[in-house]
Amino acid sequence: MSDGAAPNAGLQRLIAELLVVRASGHLSDLQRRYPRWELANSELRALLEAGVGGVILLGGSAPELALRTRQLQSWAGQPLLLCADVEEGVGQRFDGASWLVPPLALGRLHGRAPGLALELAERYGRCTGREAGALGLNWVLAPVCDVNNNPANPVINVRAWGEDPATAGALAAAFTQGLQAEGVLGCAKHFPGHGDTDCDSHLELPVLPHSRARLEAVELPPFRDAIAAGVAAVMTAHLSLPAIDRDRPATLSAAVLSGLLREELGFAGLVVTDALVMEAIAGRYGAGEAAVLALQAGADLVLMPADARLAITAIAAAVADGRLDRGRLDASVERRRAALAGLPQQGRTAADPCLAAAADTDLAKHLVTATLDARGRVQPPPAGSSGVNLIRLDQALQAPFLPAAAPAITIAAEAGFRPCLLAGDTCSPWSGDPQAPLALERLGEGPVLVQLFVRGNPFRGDAGGREPWPAALRQLLGAGRLAGVVVYGSPYLWDELQELLPAGLPAGHSPGQMPLAQQAVLLGLGLGTACSAAAGFTD
Amino acid sequence: MSDGAAPNAGLQRLIAELLVVRASGHLSDLQRRYPRWELANSELRALLEAGVGGVILLGGSAPELALRTRQLQSWAGQPLLLCADVEEGVGQRFDGASWLVPPLALGRLHGRAPGLALELAERYGRCTGREAGALGLNWVLAPVCDVNNNPANPVINVRAWGEDPATAGALAAAFTQGLQAEGVLGCAKHFPGHGDTDCDSHLELPVLPHSRARLEAVELPPFRDAIAAGVAAVMTAHLSLPAIDRDRPATLSAAVLSGLLREELGFAGLVVTDALVMEAIAGRYGAGEAAVLALQAGADLVLMPADARLAITAIAAAVADGRLDRGRLDASVERRRAALAGLPQQGRTAADPCLAAAADTDLAKHLVTATLDARGRVQPPPAGSSGVNLIRLDQALQAPFLPAAAPAITIAAEAGFRPCLLAGDTCSPWSGDPQAPLALERLGEGPVLVQLFVRGNPFRGDAGGREPWPAALRQLLGAGRLAGVVVYGSPYLWDELQELLPAGLPAGHSPGQMPLAQQAVLLGLGLGTACSAAAGFTD
Repeated sequence: MSDGAAPNAGLQRLIAELLVVRASGHLSDLQRRYPRWELANSELRALLEAGVGGVILLGGSAPELALRTRQLQSWAGQPLLLCADVEEGVGQRFDGASWLVPPLALGRLHGRAPGLALELAERYGRCTGREAGALGLNWVLAPVCDVNNNPANPVINVRAWGEDPATAGALAAAFTQGLQAEGVLGCAKHFPGHGDTDCDSHLELPVLPHSRARLEAVELPPFRDAIAAGVAAVMTAHLSLPAIDRDRPATLSAAVLSGLLREELGFAGLVVTDALVMEAIAGRYGAGEAAVLALQAGADLVLMPADARLAITAIAAAVADGRLDRGRLDASVERRRAALAGLPQQGRTAADPCLAAAADTDLAKHLVTATLDARGRVQPPPAGSSGVNLIRLDQALQAPFLPAAAPAITIAAEAGFRPCLLAGDTCSPWSGDPQAPLALERLGEGPVLVQLFVRGNPFRGDAGGREPWPAALRQLLGAGRLAGVVVYGSPYLWDELQELLPAGLPAGHSPGQMPLAQQAVLLGLGLGTACSAAAGFTD
Repeated sequence: MSDGAAPNAGLQRLIAELLVVRASGHLSDLQRRYPRWELANSELRALLEAGVGGVILLGGSAPELALRTRQLQSWAGQPLLLCADVEEGVGQRFDGASWLVPPLALGRLHGRAPGLALELAERYGRCTGREAGALGLNWVLAPVCDVNNNPANPVINVRAWGEDPATAGALAAAFTQGLQAEGVLGCAKHFPGHGDTDCDSHLELPVLPHSRARLEAVELPPFRDAIAAGVAAVMTAHLSLPAIDRDRPATLSAAVLSGLLREELGFAGLVVTDALVMEAIAGRYGAGEAAVLALQAGADLVLMPADARLAITAIAAAVADGRLDRGRLDASVERRRAALAGLPQQGRTAADPCLAAAADTDLAKHLVTATLDARGRVQPPPAGSSGVNLIRLDQALQAPFLPAAAPAITIAAEAGFRPCLLAGDTCSPWSGDPQAPLALERLGEGPVLVQLFVRGNPFRGDAGGREPWPAALRQLLGAGRLAGVVVYGSPYLWDELQELLPAGLPAGHSPGQMPLAQQAVLLGLGLGTACSAAAGFTD
């Protein structure tokens, strides 16, 4: 009927099915956190009506997400792929669901207790899958299968399941089995391995100078393990592997996607690009051409094209002029539909989503307890005086791990330590003196409890410089004012600081940064009372 | 049947109906912001099943609130009063709904354009009522009818509709008519007038030393106006009025509630206490006795008793021993049921709550535009250099008006000003030198854009001391580094600073602190581009 007006409308609709666009998990446009990247509802709805087949969601609480996924599905004329980067429990991104310690915590545990670590990884997957499904997500963009053998890696780091291939592979496989047993799809990423880089592909294109043999030994095994475990999808990495393809990054490389992944590793599931909007791709190839090259190379799905309509037009043009084989598209569409068809019936979201069920809360606590370090007891300031709760974080505004009732604030306050935030967006406490880097007069009087929220690259807080924490701790020690030190996140920073702290100094570490981890560490250091029940750790 | 086991079970249930308990608007216990004050779901559900008749909600986004009100109603065996302190639009407390400039902004506008101010106050009420109803609230705890004739008032301030009785009364009445026309109940507060105090009843009991004649001239007229407009409820104040009752605070005084309010002012609607948990009451009379005294004095409903079960037991005992007349309780129950029966049918909440409809967004913009001051154009730092965006707020963690994409941050960043937060919980930038109070070396190089988020008592940021903003601005002027000054909130601080700023210095003020106000002020000062659409001010 309308074929006369739009001769390739059917083709455009088919192409649209292969796109995954980004949207806020909030219902209202006014609530978008990143309006540059998150489509407004009017445009989002128009794209879904035009056949766009997937949405990646970020932002909003768990109950909002449940409403949002129903809304999106109601706008689309077909079953949607609804996904999110929930690598550390659904609560990592959507408040109200379970927020679990980062995977690398289990990677470390695996060294001392492999059986327990494997069991916990499987439960980690089940918890994530169950909660994702309850909120209307059907695709979890995890596990990270990168081997974090470079502690300076700014983007992978504690998101990885291990620092060696065997650990990462075994745990990623266990996670995948648990996750997919709950009726959602998983996604192994970032193929063929993003662990050994020290630059950030959001900004530039990392190069992996490794030989094919080295890839076989280090990078590929966790992907083989996840594929053997039946993982439904694999996400490509934006990095260059000259040993396999001298011209194109992995995301756009036929040698990597069709050669290595499909033929050599025998992967028959969905291949999805990492976000094409990232500078390493979009800045280099352009919004439309990047999407064409990814499909040519063997990707099935295009994640976050910089401009969805431009991508559809460019792909349709490439089919029309013979650069892209129509059969490739049909195969990808078929793979996508088959993946969706294998899932349980839609509509599992409840009116009152049953969040953080008792079993999930128990798991979250168990994971914190099993991966915690704490020694000594923090001495509160003498009665009638107060101390300083020096909290280091990347950015003070809207830190998800520091709600108003965060134990790192409230438990310390009950003990007499008043908060003093130090972040890239606060006034600086640094003196410029390398021997005495903290301007102590800016902190106020009394003993200082230091709580460092650091992930990714240790010591690299604000873009410009390195924060001199070892010297700062020595300075506080020398002044007799260091009451205790806690690191939330990086095991590398914790390892480094432990070497310089006296044996008797109260110190603790959790790989997690969330309230539950804060409460457990501070309880472990002798702080906290019954009313710390806020975080749910005491009952 | 069960009378043998619990002879006064019926009485207890009747009493429970008169309580309004506090709960988080979030669905999950883990998300409570104030777990000390917000009941856990298990206890909340048990109380509702025992007949508790009302809940006051705080926290959570608008979509969460819609789920939450349905959940609470489903737990109760009777229609509930579901209320919230949404005095400045529902978006003030529940993200995603409309957040309006504080009432005093219209009070000031009323001086120059009374007709416009009255029209906007009526629309303000309609917007609030419509959105509250859509989210399942049926009782809005507004308007504030206090006359803010004391700029140092720490608790009322910009929440009031005026600084004189005629303005406050006219606007509060217009608001009430708009609000209740949308099918929700209003509540005039805090009777008989909380505007002329400079201490905080959350902490201590303020004393109003005024004569009856002065009350008649200043404090009472806005309440008379709201009552004439048909306001459904009146909330009592926790303050002492020796001229009327030498012994008891207004909340517990028969002379104030039965004598002045019911008999003299002829109010026949619901009388509700302010939160009994506040120190001025709970600390002085005890949790159970305070509730008994409030009902004895003539209150119908008891808001936030410190311990709901204790309150029920104490009230039942007072009826049993004759201290409290059973007829009083029956009359209050009757009044409560009649108020609920007069409302539209329950169940208006939609599955996808239609938030911030176009008319409401237009109103929010209109209110900002009509109450804005801005003069001059801020000069961005020279190309290749940067400046400082010095933001003063009470507390950096989880400031609701500063989401990650807040225009006060993002628009200034686009112009080259990097954020530097200064709050009670950040490192201090104060030097201690009264002539040069800012430690400029801590702020970094370049011109400084100063944005002050101040409400309530100007200059009283952290508990300890006064912040020397006039001297700090003179210091920056003297150093040739003051790029501009913005005040969000207090008109009193704005008035004071204007006197010291040179005529040519870019400066602006909005009574609102929300993103929409930030965007409008900064646009007015020549900052901001198309991508500032985040806040919805540009389309």
